[in-house]
Amino acid sequence: MSADATRLVYLDHVASSPVDRRVAETICTVIKNNFGNPLNVHTPGQAAQEIIETARQNVAALINADPKEIIFTSCGTESNNFALYGLAQAAVGKGKHIITSQLEHFSILHALKNLEQQGFEVTYLPVDKFGFVSPEQVASAIRNDTILVSLTHASNEIGTIEPIAEIGKKAKEKGVLFHVDAVQCAGIIPVDVKTLGVDALTLASNTFYGPTGVAALYLKKGTRILPYLVGGTQEEGRRAGTHNLAGIAGMGEAAKIAKAEMAGNSEKLIKLRDKLAQGLVQKIPEFFLTGHPTGRLPGHVSGVVKYIEGESMSMLLDMEGIAVSTGSACVSKALKASHVVLAIGVSPEDAHGSLVFSMGKDNTDADVDHVLEKLPPIVERLRQMSPLYKK
Amino acid sequence: MSADATRLVYLDHVASSPVDRRVAETICTVIKNNFGNPLNVHTPGQAAQEIIETARQNVAALINADPKEIIFTSCGTESNNFALYGLAQAAVGKGKHIITSQLEHFSILHALKNLEQQGFEVTYLPVDKFGFVSPEQVASAIRNDTILVSLTHASNEIGTIEPIAEIGKKAKEKGVLFHVDAVQCAGIIPVDVKTLGVDALTLASNTFYGPTGVAALYLKKGTRILPYLVGGTQEEGRRAGTHNLAGIAGMGEAAKIAKAEMAGNSEKLIKLRDKLAQGLVQKIPEFFLTGHPTGRLPGHVSGVVKYIEGESMSMLLDMEGIAVSTGSACVSKALKASHVVLAIGVSPEDAHGSLVFSMGKDNTDADVDHVLEKLPPIVERLRQMSPLYKK
Repeated sequence: MSADATRLVYLDHVASSPVDRRVAETICTVIKNNFGNPLNVHTPGQAAQEIIETARQNVAALINADPKEIIFTSCGTESNNFALYGLAQAAVGKGKHIITSQLEHFSILHALKNLEQQGFEVTYLPVDKFGFVSPEQVASAIRNDTILVSLTHASNEIGTIEPIAEIGKKAKEKGVLFHVDAVQCAGIIPVDVKTLGVDALTLASNTFYGPTGVAALYLKKGTRILPYLVGGTQEEGRRAGTHNLAGIAGMGEAAKIAKAEMAGNSEKLIKLRDKLAQGLVQKIPEFFLTGHPTGRLPGHVSGVVKYIEGESMSMLLDMEGIAVSTGSACVSKALKASHVVLAIGVSPEDAHGSLVFSMGKDNTDADVDHVLEKLPPIVERLRQMSPLYKK
Repeated sequence: MSADATRLVYLDHVASSPVDRRVAETICTVIKNNFGNPLNVHTPGQAAQEIIETARQNVAALINADPKEIIFTSCGTESNNFALYGLAQAAVGKGKHIITSQLEHFSILHALKNLEQQGFEVTYLPVDKFGFVSPEQVASAIRNDTILVSLTHASNEIGTIEPIAEIGKKAKEKGVLFHVDAVQCAGIIPVDVKTLGVDALTLASNTFYGPTGVAALYLKKGTRILPYLVGGTQEEGRRAGTHNLAGIAGMGEAAKIAKAEMAGNSEKLIKLRDKLAQGLVQKIPEFFLTGHPTGRLPGHVSGVVKYIEGESMSMLLDMEGIAVSTGSACVSKALKASHVVLAIGVSPEDAHGSLVFSMGKDNTDADVDHVLEKLPPIVERLRQMSPLYKK
């Protein structure tokens, strides 16, 4: 085994990022010292309450929100489900039409399918070849009975950052609620709920070097929502369930660090991204990039290697100590062609060769070199075995 | 401040138990070393998967289930909501009638309220003065269109352990699904899903010295349920959302420890419980115990101090370094008389004087002595100020 291969080159930050060492310390301190239930008036309960409110301030500051507008949840999926069901059902008196796009995460698409079964009508807007949703198309899709627009801020699969502020303006003009799934953006690029003009926004801790098992929904003051988890009075009655105390503390710490270090990380990651993208194009024949070349997440490179399976490349890269994914982690065992890659016009055959390299703040120039050294021979080897290639 | 007062006597284990030191170590190890998404085929993903499957085995072993019957969730509330909505909606073809009791947790009652709005009909069985649900009453409440019985295994407020196995038998005879909220029991007393005859069972890590933010739903093989969180393919498509990796690892470790140490802890806690109960009765005039004297949770003492407010006692006890609660933590800021205490026939005036002492494995004889020394003068002082008492 070479020296390189003993070290892990982790390039799957869209699935989950490593936990920042400082965040891990915060979690360990809390898990060893605190355990109170924040709804209790006694001292341990109040200590827990303080930890949660400090975290809430840090999460709010990350997206320029008021702390009261932050609702802690257990994952991005819960926040997305909650936003769609909760906003739609609270606004049902006004209408039953919802607008989304074809490249949403399954936690949006499956929730919308359920809403369709309850009599809601959903428009799935197409995207262009870069994966952009057009603000004009959103505006013209809005009807009198439209209650909600829900769009991703950036795709985990193709990295494209959507024109959310422009769409927010259109939604506001037409008096329609606007929810944004910012799981891949918040903590990575500047996300300002006021500039974006959103009413609700999903963010997840594990994208920005916080723990899994904790996320949040931003809900603009005065926005009506039905709770999704019901029971106790936690989160001002908006989300029942005992708080994930250590997880929330970790998310707060991660948010504070993300805010302070975002600009520096971004600058570095954009350089790595562009180097990797160019290298792949140069070194791998019959390869093309997906998403937009620059209007994309800082550390994110995605593309299609024709004639072979992303899954096979991913496994062989793993043997070289390189962790990448082929699309969304949430369905990666399904082995189906990604609906996102199909939505930007890639053919079903090519879609199977999709690869996603998502870098994080600890990746280095050497990591990019390592991929550019290891991937081309893997592609060559797999193609030699591929009946598609021989044709 | 006395030497005693510098030390915390924590008697609110039903709200949340302190995290076991060994569990905390497991969580710290995982949070510092693992971060993969278990749905990924690469090495960090597979390492995460292994951690989750080990935890699943330990949780399954705790309740004599098969690992495949364990679905990880984010809290007891989510498990309860999921069980009710998911089982009811999957069985709707058979009928729309559900049976529960009057002393359920709000995560059950509020979910049932929502189901009533969707056209389900719910029977709320009364309980006797000890808080027992009668198996015969359950049996005679079952109708042709009954699809589900959902009952708590033990009340967090009055400690009573319900005759679940007998009720399970009745439900089985009549071919009706049986869900049990075992949040307060699992990990504390023996809970065997086969002996109990349940189809679904909720358990929460933070009751048995594990972390908050993670819980599980046991679902008997072959039982149909609709997922509640929808999106990715996690938990075999039964619960979408990125796994709480460190939390699940902690829950698994806590389950393993609970299984090994349950008998010893119980024996000790029953002694402390009985000593505290007797001491309170002896030392506090116009005080009565609630729930059953022996058919109750090992470390659990509950009662009513007449003429004064539980909340005031709780605050003054807190100043003496003693943390207790007045009822369910999940609504303790609501200051309403507990529906559970009312259900066992306590008058609304008396219900406000409810106190719950819930001890855990680290409590000692000295803790009980401390409470028995500090509480009586607090009661005396508050009663001197109470207009009710002067009457």
